[in-house]
Amino acid sequence: MLQLARQAPTLDAIITAHAALRAQVPLVQCLTNVVSAPFMANVLLAAGASPAMVDNPEEAAAFASIAGAVLVNLGTPTAAQVQSMRLAVQAADDIGKPWVLDPIGAGVLPWRGAVAAELLAQRPTVIRGNASEIIGLAGLGSSRAKGFDSSNDPADAMPAAMSLLKHAHCVSASGAIDHVVGKVQDDTGNVSHYLLRIAGGSALLPRITASGCALGALVAAYTAVAADAFCAVAAAHVHFALAAEYGERQAGGPGSFMPAFLDGLDLVDARLIRAKAQIDGVKLVR
Amino acid sequence: MLQLARQAPTLDAIITAHAALRAQVPLVQCLTNVVSAPFMANVLLAAGASPAMVDNPEEAAAFASIAGAVLVNLGTPTAAQVQSMRLAVQAADDIGKPWVLDPIGAGVLPWRGAVAAELLAQRPTVIRGNASEIIGLAGLGSSRAKGFDSSNDPADAMPAAMSLLKHAHCVSASGAIDHVVGKVQDDTGNVSHYLLRIAGGSALLPRITASGCALGALVAAYTAVAADAFCAVAAAHVHFALAAEYGERQAGGPGSFMPAFLDGLDLVDARLIRAKAQIDGVKLVR
Amino acid sequence: MLQLARQAPTLDAIITAHAALRAQVPLVQCLTNVVSAPFMANVLLAAGASPAMVDNPEEAAAFASIAGAVLVNLGTPTAAQVQSMRLAVQAADDIGKPWVLDPIGAGVLPWRGAVAAELLAQRPTVIRGNASEIIGLAGLGSSRAKGFDSSNDPADAMPAAMSLLKHAHCVSASGAIDHVVGKVQDDTGNVSHYLLRIAGGSALLPRITASGCALGALVAAYTAVAADAFCAVAAAHVHFALAAEYGERQAGGPGSFMPAFLDGLDLVDARLIRAKAQIDGVKLVR
Repeated sequence: MLQLARQAPTLDAIITAHAALRAQVPLVQCLTNVVSAPFMANVLLAAGASPAMVDNPEEAAAFASIAGAVLVNLGTPTAAQVQSMRLAVQAADDIGKPWVLDPIGAGVLPWRGAVAAELLAQRPTVIRGNASEIIGLAGLGSSRAKGFDSSNDPADAMPAAMSLLKHAHCVSASGAIDHVVGKVQDDTGNVSHYLLRIAGGSALLPRITASGCALGALVAAYTAVAADAFCAVAAAHVHFALAAEYGERQAGGPGSFMPAFLDGLDLVDARLIRAKAQIDGVKLVR
Repeated sequence: MLQLARQAPTLDAIITAHAALRAQVPLVQCLTNVVSAPFMANVLLAAGASPAMVDNPEEAAAFASIAGAVLVNLGTPTAAQVQSMRLAVQAADDIGKPWVLDPIGAGVLPWRGAVAAELLAQRPTVIRGNASEIIGLAGLGSSRAKGFDSSNDPADAMPAAMSLLKHAHCVSASGAIDHVVGKVQDDTGNVSHYLLRIAGGSALLPRITASGCALGALVAAYTAVAADAFCAVAAAHVHFALAAEYGERQAGGPGSFMPAFLDGLDLVDARLIRAKAQIDGVKLVR
Repeated sequence: MLQLARQAPTLDAIITAHAALRAQVPLVQCLTNVVSAPFMANVLLAAGASPAMVDNPEEAAAFASIAGAVLVNLGTPTAAQVQSMRLAVQAADDIGKPWVLDPIGAGVLPWRGAVAAELLAQRPTVIRGNASEIIGLAGLGSSRAKGFDSSNDPADAMPAAMSLLKHAHCVSASGAIDHVVGKVQDDTGNVSHYLLRIAGGSALLPRITASGCALGALVAAYTAVAADAFCAVAAAHVHFALAAEYGERQAGGPGSFMPAFLDGLDLVDARLIRAKAQIDGVKLVR
């Protein structure tokens, strides 16, 4: 079981997490939607992790005990896959494995909204979504989302993200500037909330399918190797943003962005993170 | 509910439909096969629409009421997905939302042939397939198709396409030269049939998977924004063909064609449509 | 029903098989995992075959009688898909169609291990896996595999591959140097075992998802057109390796490798096979 962070993520901690990812090549079990599966697997492989989309009820729990982390993505759930999610999450909880919830459409469609509420009660290590999804998950019914794309700014999702911190170590609302809120426990046991903003990335990311889903999977990969969940989320977002910047420089449009972005995930290294990461943090007053 | 076209699609009407697509970014619910899902989603995003592959029975109807149009593709149907198709189509019909039927393999495999016949009786707004699929759907059993690729010329599918017009506003048989037949209602209420041929495109399109499936999804996107279904089909085929021509110029083979084609879908604009669209039409005598 | 090879595959036989693939465009029924489906379909199309992912229980057997060969891949099995696998394999057996087993994760997860054992008893024409998968399938439980990636050298899988020859005509363990073992029957009816090693390829292949899965599908395509299964496996591996070498020369990383590799599959021809194939063979003493 990941401990709460002892400090907000620093650049050094992010670089250490990246080195750990490359050294350990963590195995990530992805229970995800059919649209995202190939791209997500390629993102994990390019970044330095190992994907496995084991999502049948017969094997989901057994595989969660082998995997380094579990991703649960609600993009195209079926009744059988939801059952697998329950089993994988329970197995992960039982042995202290981190797991990530990506609540696509939870605020839009009541059936998966109920699934999301049930999973939320199981206390995911991390919740990751775009701004509309974070607002939708916190409100379960009151989102202004249109379809599954984000129509909200991540800054608008801050109250929702903070309210979701009672269920998770860390909550991320991604967008033009990613907003990540996480818990930090000081030496006396007091828990504070911090906001980390990660800028950069590319306007082409929302022009390709499953980019947000793949970021969720990369967050899961980092939770398997990082010191704490807050640092894992920060490292995944920085890695993703820098790769997207590389991809955009190579690309002539959303199609050519995809292979270039994957190349970028492979190319990101400590030097680039130190030189180019755009992060700033602030302690939040509750 | 889309009205019947008042005239056969003109270049101006196609340009207007393209502008409407870009302005409205319609949400398209795709009930489609697992092979096509990622590429289809990327085609919709690159062209200027918003995809969502909600295809479980629990949510299919609810989402059809949110979406701007529904695509039903029979590529890899399961019993549960077929149930979702019934529910989504019924919901779309109830509120006058357009929906598109892509009858892959309907003439080859009896089980899905029966599903296709049932869906046909629900009167799709548009039917789109390659020539073999249109012949197979019209004949349900008599197709000369080998597997799921087209072994027929679209011109050969004209009698089949015309016979299918009793079920739909517009029927498209795509191929080297796309053949689109549609109904036009004049001021006195008389309905005539027109044939529109769209040339161009690329010989690399049938060398990549799901290109026809993705065209069906783009047709659905245009039905959500165009003045009528006939114009929507024409605009989608022109948009697709011009993007494929751009892609082919960039490509060294079928692999590099894919990202370049997606870039092309993003790049197509009014100027390019006016300069390069290859369409001609003729009124059909019945 | 494919006969046993009369000699180990020669360069001439491989070139003949490649010409037959291009001339016949065999239809390959793929019962495969959701991650691999799009890339596998594109690999088959680029190489010169025709894919169809018909994997529902209602149609699996009927389609096996139409297809030229059947691929069974255990990547993300569901109960319904496993039932389809049984039906497709039985239909293929009944009419002497070749089929290929790709036993992903069979040595790691007991549920699919039992499925793999059941399929093995049905005597696949070819078994293809990475080294860990071949060891896992032969041992069913004793693999050292971590997740689904290979952590073994193909040479280490030789005893496992040879033991699996009692179930199949040919067994392939792919890796840095692919190891293929197959049966050869001489004029007097005596059966010998041969090892064929195929070098080349690219270190980028394991950095993209479903490359091994797609190789299995290409093996199936070649079994539909080659003189014997051993030659089919050799031809598929040579075709794949040469395309990967082309792809690596064009690529800046794993992302740009994918489209270039697909272009390579399209470009490989008799001249390139004769000039660049790296194969050597040896008769094995039992």
